[in-house]
Order: sequence, then structure tokens, then C-alpha cells
Amino acid sequence: MNAAHVFHTRVYYEDTDAAGIVYYANYLKFAERARTEILREAGIVQREMAETMGVAFAVRSVSVDYIRPARLDDALIVESETIEVGGATADGIQTVRRAEDRAELARLTVRLACLRLADGRPTRIPEAVRAALSRHIVVTKP
Amino acid sequence: MNAAHVFHTRVYYEDTDAAGIVYYANYLKFAERARTEILREAGIVQREMAETMGVAFAVRSVSVDYIRPARLDDALIVESETIEVGGATADGIQTVRRAEDRAELARLTVRLACLRLADGRPTRIPEAVRAALSRHIVVTKP
Amino acid sequence: MNAAHVFHTRVYYEDTDAAGIVYYANYLKFAERARTEILREAGIVQREMAETMGVAFAVRSVSVDYIRPARLDDALIVESETIEVGGATADGIQTVRRAEDRAELARLTVRLACLRLADGRPTRIPEAVRAALSRHIVVTKP
Amino acid sequence: MNAAHVFHTRVYYEDTDAAGIVYYANYLKFAERARTEILREAGIVQREMAETMGVAFAVRSVSVDYIRPARLDDALIVESETIEVGGATADGIQTVRRAEDRAELARLTVRLACLRLADGRPTRIPEAVRAALSRHIVVTKP
Repeated sequence: MNAAHVFHTRVYYEDTDAAGIVYYANYLKFAERARTEILREAGIVQREMAETMGVAFAVRSVSVDYIRPARLDDALIVESETIEVGGATADGIQTVRRAEDRAELARLTVRLACLRLADGRPTRIPEAVRAALSRHIVVTKP
Repeated sequence: MNAAHVFHTRVYYEDTDAAGIVYYANYLKFAERARTEILREAGIVQREMAETMGVAFAVRSVSVDYIRPARLDDALIVESETIEVGGATADGIQTVRRAEDRAELARLTVRLACLRLADGRPTRIPEAVRAALSRHIVVTKP
Repeated sequence: MNAAHVFHTRVYYEDTDAAGIVYYANYLKFAERARTEILREAGIVQREMAETMGVAFAVRSVSVDYIRPARLDDALIVESETIEVGGATADGIQTVRRAEDRAELARLTVRLACLRLADGRPTRIPEAVRAALSRHIVVTKP
Repeated sequence: MNAAHVFHTRVYYEDTDAAGIVYYANYLKFAERARTEILREAGIVQREMAETMGVAFAVRSVSVDYIRPARLDDALIVESETIEVGGATADGIQTVRRAEDRAELARLTVRLACLRLADGRPTRIPEAVRAALSRHIVVTKP
């Protein structure tokens, strides 16, 4: 059965800013760590993916809604759901929650593109990667 | 006459990643630097704004389209246009361009909220700040 | 029995630069994460330390020797040893190793100062914090 | 006549942390920006240096003394002096000052090594680069 991917991370000083909260760009780091772990759990290491398959993912677009701020020392959960895996693109939603009470802190909508490293052109997502991403399609589109 | 705000910055090693291009979260840093300079050019320093007016801006949402990658040593231009200044929120568009050929690299749509620091609640944007942002409304909505 | 503190972390895209390796400033982030976890494992949360005891640590000096580069996807170990806990300062050594083969990647010598937040002046390290740090004094000075 | 190299930069939210000051690792970013500009002012662009000469600089060691904290909105000056240019290494001192009153905030001692990208081995610093660095040797060793 498919399920959202769950990734745990933590807020350190490096993530915060003078407003006392996590700097807005850093939620994109948390989300990217989670996407990396989705692949790793399926046996796909991005450095090897680049070297052996000659492909890499690039983020085409990201939208972030900031709901509540994360603070120093907060334990965080990043929940990732794949929405759709197309030929050369994949769409997903990632929700950053405070672990303590599961409060929603930020919600990201991400579109990834698979690129051929030789020329930077879009290319079909390799089957193993496609399977890894599809494992986290939670709701089948009707 | 109103005009887009223009901010110049540069890509250093710190901004790039192992894919050889600027890491996707870092465009949000470039955009934030530009927003800070919009205020500074109007005589508004954010640290003082917090201390004397008791308010600060928080990003409510940001959407980024990544068009072409920026690379090490690229000179960048961030063009910022205010779309609308509401009571407690302001909407803008920021375009990151390569200075050399003005190629569009990333386009951000940003919504800011003005918050009272005492309780984190939305509050009316101070007049001086409102004027600074309104200076960069390029197209009047019909 | 005292032992070096061991902290596990991982290299993500955010940590690397266009040279394909971890950017040199980011080893300081790894080291700071480890120092935070030393305190946390002793029940000391820095945000609470600031709020209830009115003190915080500042880094007075750090020296880093870069031995071998860490790369994307590397699992890392940060080993931390306390050298000496003085009145208001603490000295330690932190070694960043590649988990796979325990190869030494970077070695940091760090001096921390305990500061009173009210005025930024040095102040005596609280006893609970002193105990937490002393737990990782490996070699007693002769 | 030789002189220290002077580089201007600014503290933005991205550079600060929840303690309200610049995060300690970020002084290394400021220093690296300054080193990049030393080369650029001598007509040496690091991306081209890698592509045409097949060499790059790596930091071998860095020591930082943190004297006073930099804060949000501070204008900073990075003064860089070359101490010695050896065969494959170069040593320098970089001082980060607050522009307003020239107060010393941090002092870095840096050793760079020139590496052949093909195999990562130390290699002789190219003459053009050697000249650029030597321009900032302020005091001749007796």
C-alpha cells in the first residue's frame, strides 16, 4: 500500500535568522533532504544516478505557503506525497510539520524535471526512479 | 515615475551546489536581499523598523519558476515590482536575470505580511514602508 | 567512563558547491549540530537555556584543518571531545569523518564562551552544562 | 605599491541566526567572496581558471577569531592581505570590519592550496594568479 514518505529533521542555529525563526529559504533545504531520502530508500543514490545513468533532477518550480514558523530546536517531519509521475517530470506535495504536535508549518508544491546531464535537456525518468516516486502516490486520481 | 527596483548581486561558491549551478533555495536569498535594499533606499532599515515600529515582514508565500540555471561567477540582476500593497500584506514579482545578456533565470511571486512583533499578529503596514513599496508599482491595475 | 560524543549526519546538495565537494564553511555547521546534540542528550535545550538561565554559548575561535573533501551523499560522523571546561569557556576538538571508512575529513579546534544574554558579558558556565561537556573529556590532562 | 584588498558586503537576514547575530560559519562566506574578487580584479575568473588551466583553489586550513558580532543590516569590510605565496600554497589574513566604525569583528588566517582538477593533487600556482595574490602582500618579511 502506498503512503506518504516521512522524513525527520531538526532545526539548528544555522537554519534560523535574526527574527528568531527558520529563514524562509531553508524549508526548501528540508524538502530537498526528504526527496533525497525517498530515492535513497529505494536504493537510488543521486551521485550514482548522475554517474551511471547520466541524469539528474532539477526543480522546475516550487510554491511554498508558510503557515506557522519553525523555531530553534524544533523537531520537524517532512511528509512527501507524489502527485503524478509524467514522462520527464514529477509533481509532489511536501508538508513540513512540527513533530511535537504535528502542526503544519509549511506546505510546498514541487515540480521536478529529469535532465540529461550531457546537454541539460529533459529526458525520461529512469524506471527505477519512477517506481521509487510512485511508491508515494497516496491518492489515485479518479 | 514608478519603475521596477534593480538590485545587483553575484554568484559565489557558497551559492552553488554539486550540480554546478546555483542551489534552488538560494534564489530566495537573492530576492530577499533585493527586498531589503528597496526598504533601505527609502530610508527604512529593518532592524530599526523592528525596534522603533515593533513590526517586521514575514513571507506568507512564494512561488518560483526556475527557467535557466545561474552559474558560478555570474553577475545577477534582481528586478522587483510591487503588484499591490494591501492593509497588512504586499504582493510582488521578482525576476532574477543574468546581467550579461539579461536572460531570465528565475521568476518569483512573493506575498509578504506585516506582523506586530509583540504577538506575531498581522498589522497595518506603516505608511513610510507603504510608500517605499508603492514606488515600485509599475503597472496600475485597470 | 568518558567517551567522545558521536553524531551522525549526511551530506545533501545544500552542503556542496560547484567544485563537487562540501563547501568549506559547512563543516562548521556539522560541528555546531553535534555540539547542540551533546547538550540535548544531557537534557539541555539551547532555547530553554537562553530563556531560563539567560545564557548562551558563542564561538570565540575555531581552527579547521581540511584533510579530505566530503562529497554529496556521504554519511558523516562528527566525533567531539572536550579538552577543558574553564570558568566561562570550554575548549574542544571535533573530527568529521566519512562513516563508510572512518577517514578523517576535517578536524576542528573550538573555543566556546558562555555569555550572559542581558549584556553579552562572559559568565560562568551553569553546572548542568558543565557536567554535560565534561562527560566528553576523554583524556585527563596529566 | 602594495595594499590590503578591500571588499564591501552587507549582512542580510540569511546571514543571521536566532541569537540575533551573524552565524559563525558565515564569516567564511564573506572571506571567500573577498578572495574571489581579488582574483576577479586581476582578470581571473575561477570558472575559467578551472576550465582553461585545470586548477582550482582549496582551503587547507582556516582559523577564525571572533571578536565582536556582526548584526543584521551591518555594512562590512573584508580586508585581505597575502602573507606568502609559496609553490602550491598561499597564506593570507582576512579581517572583517564593521564599515561604520571600522571595528574589528573577526580575523581569519587562511591557507589555500592550488589543486590540479584532474587528480586533486597539489600543483604550482599559475603565474597570473601568483601575481594577483602578491599584489596584496603588504609587509615584506624581513
